[in-house]
Amino acid sequence: MSDKFTDDEKEGFYKAIYSRRDVRSHFTDKPIDEKILTKILHAAHHAPSVGFSQPWNFILIKDPKTKQKIKESFQKEHKRASELVEDPKRSEYLSLKLEGIMESDVNVCVTYDPTKFGPFIIGTTSIPEAGIYSVCCAIQNLWLAARAENIGLGWVSIVSNDVLREQLNLPEHIVPVAYLCLGHVTNFETKPDLERSGWLPRLQLKDVVYYEKWEQKEDESWNVIQKMIKSNLNYA
Amino acid sequence: MSDKFTDDEKEGFYKAIYSRRDVRSHFTDKPIDEKILTKILHAAHHAPSVGFSQPWNFILIKDPKTKQKIKESFQKEHKRASELVEDPKRSEYLSLKLEGIMESDVNVCVTYDPTKFGPFIIGTTSIPEAGIYSVCCAIQNLWLAARAENIGLGWVSIVSNDVLREQLNLPEHIVPVAYLCLGHVTNFETKPDLERSGWLPRLQLKDVVYYEKWEQKEDESWNVIQKMIKSNLNYA
Repeated sequence: MSDKFTDDEKEGFYKAIYSRRDVRSHFTDKPIDEKILTKILHAAHHAPSVGFSQPWNFILIKDPKTKQKIKESFQKEHKRASELVEDPKRSEYLSLKLEGIMESDVNVCVTYDPTKFGPFIIGTTSIPEAGIYSVCCAIQNLWLAARAENIGLGWVSIVSNDVLREQLNLPEHIVPVAYLCLGHVTNFETKPDLERSGWLPRLQLKDVVYYEKWEQKEDESWNVIQKMIKSNLNYA
Repeated sequence: MSDKFTDDEKEGFYKAIYSRRDVRSHFTDKPIDEKILTKILHAAHHAPSVGFSQPWNFILIKDPKTKQKIKESFQKEHKRASELVEDPKRSEYLSLKLEGIMESDVNVCVTYDPTKFGPFIIGTTSIPEAGIYSVCCAIQNLWLAARAENIGLGWVSIVSNDVLREQLNLPEHIVPVAYLCLGHVTNFETKPDLERSGWLPRLQLKDVVYYEKWEQKEDESWNVIQKMIKSNLNYA
């Protein structure tokens, strides 16, 4: 395998980046093939980790009793959240489909274990949060690999971590980082649900890039890229 | 573009996943083409984000004076960390090359802004940390895209966030999440530096997967995948 990527290899890679969606609808009841699920988990496990600590665990969940408890936690947290906003935003919020816990074939809870290979983990001595950041990198690998395997994935963060702890027997020191729903889907949307519904707009790249210092939008030594990013071409 | 990935497209995608490295050595002084850097940032900006909040910013840094200050912070934090372990671990730690701040063409600080589109962000009402998790997903997109473009990337987490705040003029409410070093490299290693040097071993997939509950390694309904994962085949 050559270091360099061919144009075709890049195309496959960017297809995963740009066609990945946070999926809450369109799940079908076709089960995920075990080999496919293994491939997806294998990709997640090959994420970068601070000090090579590999501090993640993946709990695979199919039991409808567990799923039901998590779904109830979603419903409770969802209702609580809706009370934080006023109409018309409230009705709009309540009309959105925000999870696919029961309909998706497999749920995966991704956790962080700060004690793995510890206590001396390279790179966590100044920024201890780096461990949890590694787990998030694994989640993004998992998400992209699912997309490449044509499996939809939705991240449910409207849920109580206490309920997750209780339902999954997590010890005190283990942090639940993500609750994911995976399954076959009828189709992938071309744009994020919350963009399509008009909830929030997609920012332009120029809105999120600064040069040399916070909020600095212009800088001599970045002239060329500045113009490029301002022109708002689609690099997808 | 069809929903489904062809075998060739998958190959390109998995090549990025498995050949991505945390790069601290081998940087060359060839500058990164502006169009390539824009493509990499564009991929990062298309990461998933909780409630579509896109809470990231990317500060591009070339100024050697800034880099030098960050490097000094690394040196200080590195020395401090080394005092936490005893020989022979200490000497081993000190012999590792852990950053490429000055040698890499471009440094990027990725930050989290909890106020963007706030205060009511879908999905952060039960788990506020979900915002910072989104930033980490963007970092992983950035990292993989850099690899696809044949650009090395190293994440420096041995650094003081206070120094980053001061050098980059970050306001109080902005969280520095990652300090990244990007540049062309002579080559990519086939294995992580800390695995090659024998600092820590690569865990097997079976060590990090549980079924239905924490630490449950066996479960009736997961028989097939359990055997598959236990057999420790290489799915790369």
